[in-house]
Amino acid sequence: MNNNGSSMMSILMFSGDYDKALAALILANSARELNIEVSMFFAFWGLMLVRDPNSIPEGEKTTMEKMFSNMSPKHIEDLPLSKMNFAGIGKKMLVGMMEDTDTPKLSDFLNGALNKGVSMKACKLSCEVMGFGEEELLKEVTIVTAEDYLVDALNSDIQLFI
Amino acid sequence: MNNNGSSMMSILMFSGDYDKALAALILANSARELNIEVSMFFAFWGLMLVRDPNSIPEGEKTTMEKMFSNMSPKHIEDLPLSKMNFAGIGKKMLVGMMEDTDTPKLSDFLNGALNKGVSMKACKLSCEVMGFGEEELLKEVTIVTAEDYLVDALNSDIQLFI
Amino acid sequence: MNNNGSSMMSILMFSGDYDKALAALILANSARELNIEVSMFFAFWGLMLVRDPNSIPEGEKTTMEKMFSNMSPKHIEDLPLSKMNFAGIGKKMLVGMMEDTDTPKLSDFLNGALNKGVSMKACKLSCEVMGFGEEELLKEVTIVTAEDYLVDALNSDIQLFI
Repeated sequence: MNNNGSSMMSILMFSGDYDKALAALILANSARELNIEVSMFFAFWGLMLVRDPNSIPEGEKTTMEKMFSNMSPKHIEDLPLSKMNFAGIGKKMLVGMMEDTDTPKLSDFLNGALNKGVSMKACKLSCEVMGFGEEELLKEVTIVTAEDYLVDALNSDIQLFI
Repeated sequence: MNNNGSSMMSILMFSGDYDKALAALILANSARELNIEVSMFFAFWGLMLVRDPNSIPEGEKTTMEKMFSNMSPKHIEDLPLSKMNFAGIGKKMLVGMMEDTDTPKLSDFLNGALNKGVSMKACKLSCEVMGFGEEELLKEVTIVTAEDYLVDALNSDIQLFI
Repeated sequence: MNNNGSSMMSILMFSGDYDKALAALILANSARELNIEVSMFFAFWGLMLVRDPNSIPEGEKTTMEKMFSNMSPKHIEDLPLSKMNFAGIGKKMLVGMMEDTDTPKLSDFLNGALNKGVSMKACKLSCEVMGFGEEELLKEVTIVTAEDYLVDALNSDIQLFI
């Protein structure tokens, strides 16, 4: 519970998979509908969810950082599925089934979460290892440490590692 | 803590992997032994755990829904391993090692959980996207929304995303 | 909260992936810096994190247990990545990027956690199924049941399944 007496949910977003991102962002949107405060901490592959597709990196990158930056998906809709071949279902099939049922897209859920005031933070160490500067992330995202995440998680009523 | 003053555990079952299902259902059974109330919410691939193998779908399915329904495992024992090739171990090997040590099967843990009163709910949006009707799920399973899950999770002492 | 009034974090370490182990052990180290008590419960593939690389197994192993023991990584630095091909990044690339940024190695974080008094327990059923004796695990690790884990988790302020 936070200082205002409202409930809080903390999500540590480790995965960069399309389907897991969908689950996390649907939970974040639903929680806001219930007036639950939501804090998301993006670490490791989870950073892929909050890259700014239009950003131009400042400063120097090492060769490996450049390679990594170029090879990884810049846009959230380009994330891969956690189970490419689970039951033969591919990402196209899932996205097709979502369209058939008028389910919003992953980027819609991301924008919804941002509009509803979900707090989004990126892991400092992950950014350093992967060579991402804050200017390469969505402008709503700030970079914080694992300790900051833990303080948030301690104040939360629900903590999930996704 | 619930209204009766007993502890509660909430599991969001996202994965449809044999080994993760095993972990979740062992936890559910163990929690009931300690008189902890357990609520499981099956979403995305997790729905595969609670399909009724003998069900005949009512209503019309789209071509994609039919494809998906036919290609995905109908029985819990047919779920794949999360790491097919981890350390060269295949599912046969794991199941063989379980048999050698007289460990119950995954379906035994599922039945145990049902018999011990674990509450099982399926995610409404996941059912819609994947085209599953309630009649295709185990009869103990009811379909609820992500908001319903969050209310359950808020009342729980332990929340896990598996 | 524990008997001494300090906060507690409980991690159920299911995965045996290098990157997920890194996330878990960074959290464990950071939590100790904040004086949060940490309890880690290693189950299934997570057991791979706490094998003693120098141990000689006592007692008889079945053929399958021997095969499994020989084929699985004995040293924590040999764990595979959860996404070998995610964005084309391999484990060598990640480890290289970690070295470039002077990030400690996985084994450093493991030793750090042990030195800082993180409590480490192994799942009894997992040990039995995989044929691991306590003498094959790090000497700081004790074998406990899923019920023991749940009691720990109930007393914790943060519970994560990784």
